[in-house]
Amino acid sequence: MMSDTKTLFQHGTLALLVPGLLTGTATMADILAHGDTGIGTGEGLDGELIILDGVVYQADANGQINEVDAQFTTPFANSHFASYEPLVTVSDQSRAALQAAILTASNSANTFFSIRLHGIFKNVTTRVVKKSTKPYKTLAQTAASQVVFHRDLVEGTLLSYYAPQIFDGAAVGGFHSHFLADDHRFGGHLLSYETATGEVDFQQFDRLDQQLPTSDAAYMNHDFSADDILESIHKSE
Amino acid sequence: MMSDTKTLFQHGTLALLVPGLLTGTATMADILAHGDTGIGTGEGLDGELIILDGVVYQADANGQINEVDAQFTTPFANSHFASYEPLVTVSDQSRAALQAAILTASNSANTFFSIRLHGIFKNVTTRVVKKSTKPYKTLAQTAASQVVFHRDLVEGTLLSYYAPQIFDGAAVGGFHSHFLADDHRFGGHLLSYETATGEVDFQQFDRLDQQLPTSDAAYMNHDFSADDILESIHKSE
Repeated sequence: MMSDTKTLFQHGTLALLVPGLLTGTATMADILAHGDTGIGTGEGLDGELIILDGVVYQADANGQINEVDAQFTTPFANSHFASYEPLVTVSDQSRAALQAAILTASNSANTFFSIRLHGIFKNVTTRVVKKSTKPYKTLAQTAASQVVFHRDLVEGTLLSYYAPQIFDGAAVGGFHSHFLADDHRFGGHLLSYETATGEVDFQQFDRLDQQLPTSDAAYMNHDFSADDILESIHKSE
Repeated sequence: MMSDTKTLFQHGTLALLVPGLLTGTATMADILAHGDTGIGTGEGLDGELIILDGVVYQADANGQINEVDAQFTTPFANSHFASYEPLVTVSDQSRAALQAAILTASNSANTFFSIRLHGIFKNVTTRVVKKSTKPYKTLAQTAASQVVFHRDLVEGTLLSYYAPQIFDGAAVGGFHSHFLADDHRFGGHLLSYETATGEVDFQQFDRLDQQLPTSDAAYMNHDFSADDILESIHKSE
């Protein structure tokens, strides 16, 4: 069977992280069955995941990059089968300018897409969430204990997913980016960078394959109506 | 290949109807490839569709029920392969009470599901949207010219899809229901009924297969940021 390169797979929702529904409800084997490229987090918000060429890397709160195995579980992850095409080449471009350039060049603000940018980044800041155990913390509580890392200059790969704003809350509206340094000594959820230099690769999707953890009683029993999902998410990003 | 009975297929979004992106971007053949049961509307909001046992019925603004063919197109539709199970039996139950009973009995407020209720309905009101041609009207303009139909007592089938609130705007958050009378002389988008008597069938999904009309230039070029999507939708429902 040929891989489907027009579909973005998502397990869980961004929203379920808000009240702390952090049980790992899919394995990396499940996620990799839907793609060789992706991002996510571990059970209990155990670090920041980036999947490149079928290998799952975890940036942990100690600043280590680990490879995790097929049994490692996640409450929320995206994956897809890579089939990128070059979109633009950038030199010392700011993040805001690059995002605007991507939206203009791709004309894809109303659909899902992925960006992969390998290059040189200046003044990069990432955050890594810290694992909590049951009873799980809320996203706001977790964000308060996140660890922030910085590099003045680093070569590596930025992997982003973009979702149209109407999907904000189910997915991350706009760009959601993780980073992995080539030397595997730095990574995590990308908070900011000053400039990037490199080739920007683009892959558009026409389909979201959204899987929900219907076997997880905590998820199914939760009353989301009391959570201020979008406000909490946007404070944490 | 066995049919996938745990997946709800959706073509387009509720949101794209708001600014009037009403080009038919999928055919009934496409929709039926993803299910034998469903609801939707035609190009230009050409009536209200209900799909039962693989047959697509269109309630039109003249009050007629028509069967449409495989080439008929839609901007927004849902479908799935029916595999319902009995959930509850109701007798002269109000719509609000039934929706509450369904949520309690199914414990499925946080996932997608479908309800099919064949029975006797009292004081049923439906609306049917009226086709517009290019330049398409907005949803608010279309709603202003919708036609409303009523039956004091009618036997027929109510078909509903339920979406978790976090998907409101992409899908219809909560229940979205169409109706078809057994005699094929009455149908449309269900606005209200007083009571229903019959067996309530339930089918839970763990997956949303969301397809976006990326080949439609009008959709891809539209700036949704100026539309008040949710307010407009909730005024029209």
